[in-house]
Amino acid sequence: MNKHLLSINDLTAADITQILDTAVQMHEVQHRDIKKLPTLRGRTVVNFFFEDSTRTRGSFELAEKWLSADSLNMAGKGSSLSKGESLRDTVMNLQAMGVDGFVIRHMSSGAQQQIASWVSGVVINAGDGTHEHPTQALLDAYTMRRELGDLDGRHVVICGDLRHSRVFRSNVLCLAKLGATVSVVAPPTLMPDGIRTWAERDGFTWSHDFDAEIPKADVVMMLRVQKERMSGGFFPTPREYIAGFGLTPRRLELMRDDALICHPGPMNRGLEISSDAADGARSVILDQVSGGVAVRMSVLYHLLAGEGETA
Amino acid sequence: MNKHLLSINDLTAADITQILDTAVQMHEVQHRDIKKLPTLRGRTVVNFFFEDSTRTRGSFELAEKWLSADSLNMAGKGSSLSKGESLRDTVMNLQAMGVDGFVIRHMSSGAQQQIASWVSGVVINAGDGTHEHPTQALLDAYTMRRELGDLDGRHVVICGDLRHSRVFRSNVLCLAKLGATVSVVAPPTLMPDGIRTWAERDGFTWSHDFDAEIPKADVVMMLRVQKERMSGGFFPTPREYIAGFGLTPRRLELMRDDALICHPGPMNRGLEISSDAADGARSVILDQVSGGVAVRMSVLYHLLAGEGETA
Amino acid sequence: MNKHLLSINDLTAADITQILDTAVQMHEVQHRDIKKLPTLRGRTVVNFFFEDSTRTRGSFELAEKWLSADSLNMAGKGSSLSKGESLRDTVMNLQAMGVDGFVIRHMSSGAQQQIASWVSGVVINAGDGTHEHPTQALLDAYTMRRELGDLDGRHVVICGDLRHSRVFRSNVLCLAKLGATVSVVAPPTLMPDGIRTWAERDGFTWSHDFDAEIPKADVVMMLRVQKERMSGGFFPTPREYIAGFGLTPRRLELMRDDALICHPGPMNRGLEISSDAADGARSVILDQVSGGVAVRMSVLYHLLAGEGETA
Repeated sequence: MNKHLLSINDLTAADITQILDTAVQMHEVQHRDIKKLPTLRGRTVVNFFFEDSTRTRGSFELAEKWLSADSLNMAGKGSSLSKGESLRDTVMNLQAMGVDGFVIRHMSSGAQQQIASWVSGVVINAGDGTHEHPTQALLDAYTMRRELGDLDGRHVVICGDLRHSRVFRSNVLCLAKLGATVSVVAPPTLMPDGIRTWAERDGFTWSHDFDAEIPKADVVMMLRVQKERMSGGFFPTPREYIAGFGLTPRRLELMRDDALICHPGPMNRGLEISSDAADGARSVILDQVSGGVAVRMSVLYHLLAGEGETA
Repeated sequence: MNKHLLSINDLTAADITQILDTAVQMHEVQHRDIKKLPTLRGRTVVNFFFEDSTRTRGSFELAEKWLSADSLNMAGKGSSLSKGESLRDTVMNLQAMGVDGFVIRHMSSGAQQQIASWVSGVVINAGDGTHEHPTQALLDAYTMRRELGDLDGRHVVICGDLRHSRVFRSNVLCLAKLGATVSVVAPPTLMPDGIRTWAERDGFTWSHDFDAEIPKADVVMMLRVQKERMSGGFFPTPREYIAGFGLTPRRLELMRDDALICHPGPMNRGLEISSDAADGARSVILDQVSGGVAVRMSVLYHLLAGEGETA
Repeated sequence: MNKHLLSINDLTAADITQILDTAVQMHEVQHRDIKKLPTLRGRTVVNFFFEDSTRTRGSFELAEKWLSADSLNMAGKGSSLSKGESLRDTVMNLQAMGVDGFVIRHMSSGAQQQIASWVSGVVINAGDGTHEHPTQALLDAYTMRRELGDLDGRHVVICGDLRHSRVFRSNVLCLAKLGATVSVVAPPTLMPDGIRTWAERDGFTWSHDFDAEIPKADVVMMLRVQKERMSGGFFPTPREYIAGFGLTPRRLELMRDDALICHPGPMNRGLEISSDAADGARSVILDQVSGGVAVRMSVLYHLLAGEGETA
């Protein structure tokens, strides 16, 4: 396994399988009364979040605590960066303090790649700009595999604001490695530039016709819409968005009975997803959250529990 | 004992006595060099505070740490709620992550009741709007009982902004269950609507004449005034407030020599309470704070230490 | 050793040597896989920071965690102080909750001295206004001693915004106690009032001529410039500052080959220090950060690990 987890491309299919297998064991720990393992006792992980996050920050923090690591939480605001210190100097300072692992969310695509080139500790990407969010893709795969078994040959439809979605980017890479077929759907203005080349390279298909894709799906993954992008004439209005790309009660009818519904959260209920879809029997949205802690425990274990890796 | 602690009405008199008795033991732990008990090792508690708080948040966090629980701190700001996620979805996510207990402060009366109807974990109300603050009433009872013994037949006078006080609401319920006599005092504009019916139902008396009540008191409990409410012609001016309802040096003379002075903090010195009162020999204000950690340890222990209660 | 660490004047030369000797042992712990010592298990330390800080807050928090203390983090904002509670009442509340140690940063010179007069717990000054920052001076001495051995007779040149620098104030006191010779350099408008009297009393020399001092130095310590002070005609412009007081590539030539470069951070690269200086072989800036955790572990150990000191 690579030293860092910056992108799904850092992982082979075998690495992914190993992470998901370990996560199964970690998930059992969560269902015990005593959630604590001594695995990372004496290791120190900093959670450095330059963007707000409930789910991801809390999920990593719990994963660290349950593995007995020491956690240090830092926010972009309130740090020395607000005094004009460079990102490199801030990070090198944390490194010098003896931090073993860096869990980082940053608004700039590629920031964690840069940081990994500077520090000797382990860097885990908890979301960088519109680039990647690899632990999200791993927990999505974990949840699907738990329900469907092997993902080889399964069909996943991803629908939403693909242009701005790091979850989408990590998922197409991860699902391809696991042998799943992926088709993606977005309105024209929320489709990334260069999607044609990209789809060919990474082996997925794309369209604007959600209704045509839904019946093929073993999994329908809905992505969050940034409401603040829905103003001005260029982007669809909420009403247009729902009509074309919302997982409405009508579209639930188009889904196969055994197909799953995923969403990385936070959800805009009534916009990209109806409450019928979010709360129905086929929804595994809360299972994703639950599996997320287990998957992060597994990633932390594989990257930090080795011997002699301390900075 | 009930599963949650949302209101003093969740507790019988016997429950309250049991919590206070356990708190006595917990309080001894605080006076040792080594404050730590292994009681909640492997249990996870989230402190979710939608309103600022030094005292209550710190008090719960210390109680959790000294019982060896894992604590996760969340603030209303910086959470996914600021991205438009519903309170229910935010809370269900924390639940899915494997949180065992939710210590919640919220600006809306009844929010915790709602949350308790959603989650399978334990909910502890750390203050909801103008409704209740049950652990505050328990620590008040703890402090009084420590000084006075059995509260049966004791007389407690509560004075202040009753209209907006959750501390008052929890205290009248708690003190009634413990057999104390309660009289409450406020200026007309800071008296809750429907006080007459309410006083009859819960068995306390009310008036606007602080001087007449003070001599009866075994305990005088002063409540915080929100200074921001003291503008405009409707509410009393600070000067009028002090004259009618402040615990001034003159009013200290009206108190019995062995009567106690309580205040839940933070205090407005020179407004509802004079420094002579706050710092004098009869003040147990810092004892309340000290007992608060012990009482919260006891509550956490009773609600979370049981076997097989994990979500 | 004194009970509190408010100023370097609380320490004798022997105390300082003892702290630095213990820090050597603590530093070894940082280079092990397992960083944890049980030394302060059951002790509780509050980190109360009224000013933003990455380095110092993180450094103390790690030191506390690695000594197994329980840490409580409080910020000035979000505390009851924002509801108008006095500093004394806020601190007395923390004391009453059972906190053993107070690590405090405050914007007012002398605030910690006040706090120490109120509480029975141990107070450690993590920076007060323009007054002192004693653990910074200790970690500076630690880093110099590690590289140079005994500091007796060594020459340290401190250059920068002396008027506003607590780091400078703590360093001249600490270095004098350890027998080092100190000369300080600043532009006239950033020289403290009364520097003449002060220099005579504390036994250092001062000038505006950086070039003349550099060749004497075993250590050149650069201080941060507050950029927001560099506007208006009174203070030097950035260009003038660099010309007269920046550690430029040209000035590196004036330094002895074996002389060290220190900076307490956060650095303004290209202003008071060039990247050639900051990242060159003679820079020990990241060693300062690394030693900082060890020195703080040592201070916490000496002030809090004793028996029977609990409040």
